Amino acid sequence: MKKWKRSARLVDMTQQLLSQPHRLIPLSTFAERYQAAKSSISEDLAIIHEVFREEGEGMLQTVSGATGGIRFIPRVSHENALKLSQQICEQLRLPSRILPGGYLYLSDLLGDTKLVRDIGRLFASVFYDRQVDAVVTVETKGIPLAYATAGQLGVPVAIVRRDSRITEGSVVTINTVSGSSKRLGTLSLSRRSLPEGSSALIIDDFMKAGGTVRGMFDLLQEFHAEVVGVGVMADSRAEERLVDDYLSLATVDEVDVRERRIAVKAGTLFNGSDCDGDD
Amino acid sequence: MKKWKRSARLVDMTQQLLSQPHRLIPLSTFAERYQAAKSSISEDLAIIHEVFREEGEGMLQTVSGATGGIRFIPRVSHENALKLSQQICEQLRLPSRILPGGYLYLSDLLGDTKLVRDIGRLFASVFYDRQVDAVVTVETKGIPLAYATAGQLGVPVAIVRRDSRITEGSVVTINTVSGSSKRLGTLSLSRRSLPEGSSALIIDDFMKAGGTVRGMFDLLQEFHAEVVGVGVMADSRAEERLVDDYLSLATVDEVDVRERRIAVKAGTLFNGSDCDGDD
Repeated sequence: MKKWKRSARLVDMTQQLLSQPHRLIPLSTFAERYQAAKSSISEDLAIIHEVFREEGEGMLQTVSGATGGIRFIPRVSHENALKLSQQICEQLRLPSRILPGGYLYLSDLLGDTKLVRDIGRLFASVFYDRQVDAVVTVETKGIPLAYATAGQLGVPVAIVRRDSRITEGSVVTINTVSGSSKRLGTLSLSRRSLPEGSSALIIDDFMKAGGTVRGMFDLLQEFHAEVVGVGVMADSRAEERLVDDYLSLATVDEVDVRERRIAVKAGTLFNGSDCDGDD
Repeated sequence: MKKWKRSARLVDMTQQLLSQPHRLIPLSTFAERYQAAKSSISEDLAIIHEVFREEGEGMLQTVSGATGGIRFIPRVSHENALKLSQQICEQLRLPSRILPGGYLYLSDLLGDTKLVRDIGRLFASVFYDRQVDAVVTVETKGIPLAYATAGQLGVPVAIVRRDSRITEGSVVTINTVSGSSKRLGTLSLSRRSLPEGSSALIIDDFMKAGGTVRGMFDLLQEFHAEVVGVGVMADSRAEERLVDDYLSLATVDEVDVRERRIAVKAGTLFNGSDCDGDD
C-alpha cells in the first residue's frame, strides 16, 4: 500500500476534485485512497477550499450525514466574470468580423479552447444551483460552449439537429420560423438523448430574436422537460424578442456595415452596462 | 501582498498547471505569484510531477534557459488507456445501439462529458509530441472529441462544415464521395479558421471507409496544412480503406442486425487485440 505524504495528498486531491465538478465524493473514498484519518482529510479539504475561494476558482461544499461527502462547485468571481465579458466585448468589436449582410464572424472565438472553457465555467457558475440534468444546444457553433458548461456541471449534453440523421435513431422533430429572417426550418432531438422530464439548461453561441431558442423550448416540451435556464455568449438587438428570460455575456447593439463599426455592451448578466474593456 | 503557505501553494500550482496544458510557464511567474524563491518553487514542482507521474495524470516538463519554464503534459498510462478502450468496447457492444441499416447509435456516448474528456486526454497523450497547431474535425459528432483533445493540447479547433454558412465568411469547399455509401457531399472550411501551413490533427467520432477523413486531407491541402495525425473513437471494417494511418480506440468488426449482435475489438491503438472488458 502506497504511503502518501501530506504534500502529495494535497496535489492529488486537488486534481481529483477539479476533474469531477459537482460530483459528491464520500470522505471515506479519500480516507481509503490516502490511508489517512478523516480528520486529516478534512484539514486538507479546508486548505483546498480556502485556496479555491480566494483565487476565485470555486468552493468545496460539505454534505454531512451517512450519504454525505464533499463536492467541488466551480464558481467564477464577479471580478473574473467582468474581465471575461470585457474580453468578449473587445473581441466582438473588431471590424474584421463584419461579414456581408451584417453577420459577424465568430468561429475564431468559438475555436479558442481556453476562451470556450472560461465561458463554460462562467455559465456553470451562474446556473450552479439550478439542478440541471442536461445541457441542451443546437448544432453547430453552440456545441463547444455546451460541452464546456456541462463538463463543469458534471452533466451530459443533448444536441438538437437541424436535419435528422439516420444515426440519431427515433427523433422528435418540430418546424420552426426564424424570428429575425422568417426562414422556415426544423429542429430534431433524438428520443434517447434526453430522458423524459429532465431539467434542461439551454446554451448557445448567439441569439438574435430568439427563434431557435424558442423552438428548443417547444421541442423540449415534447420531452416533458423543464427549461431551468438559457445562456448565450452574445445576443443582439431584435425588434421582436421571442425569449425574455436569458443570460448573455455581451450584447451587440449595432453593426454598421458601411462605417465598419460594431457597437457592443456587456450582456444581460451584467444588466447591459457599458463594457469598457477597450480603454 | 498575500503570504502563501506551502500547502496553499501546492494546491494553487496544481490548479494552474492542470488548467494550462502544454503551455510553458516561466518559473519566475510562479516565484512572483507566491513570493517564494525559485528553489522552493522547484521543490514544489518536483512533488507535483511525482504525483502526476505515479497517478498516470501526466508529467511536468522542465525547459531550461532564459526562455525556459515548466509545462504540464497530460499523459495517460497504458493501463488507463486499456481501461478506457474496454469501457468503449463494452458500450459499443450493447445491442440496443443497432439502428436500421446496421448503423450504430452513438450520441449517448458522445453526450457523456466525462467519457469525452477521457478520450480527449488519451488522444492528447498519444499525439503529445507531434507539434500540433490545431485540431480539425467535421461537424457534428466529432466536435466534442475535437475540443476535448485540443483543450488538453492547448491548441484551437477548426470545424469543417458539410454545408457552407454565411457566418463562416470566405470558405474553401471541396466535393467528396463517401467511401462506404458512394454518396456525394461537400466539405467546407472557413479561410480564417486555420492559418496557412498549420500542422493539423484530425479527430472524429467514427470512421468507416474513411471517405470523410480522406476529404479532410484534400481540403487541408488547400490550406497547405500538414496532417500530423488522425484519431477516431471507433472505426469499422470496410472493404476499401481510404485512409491507412490512423488511430482508433475500438473497432466494430461486425453488426449482425438479425441476431442483434455487435462484434467489437480494441482499436488500432492497441493493434486490434481482443478487448475483454466484458468479462
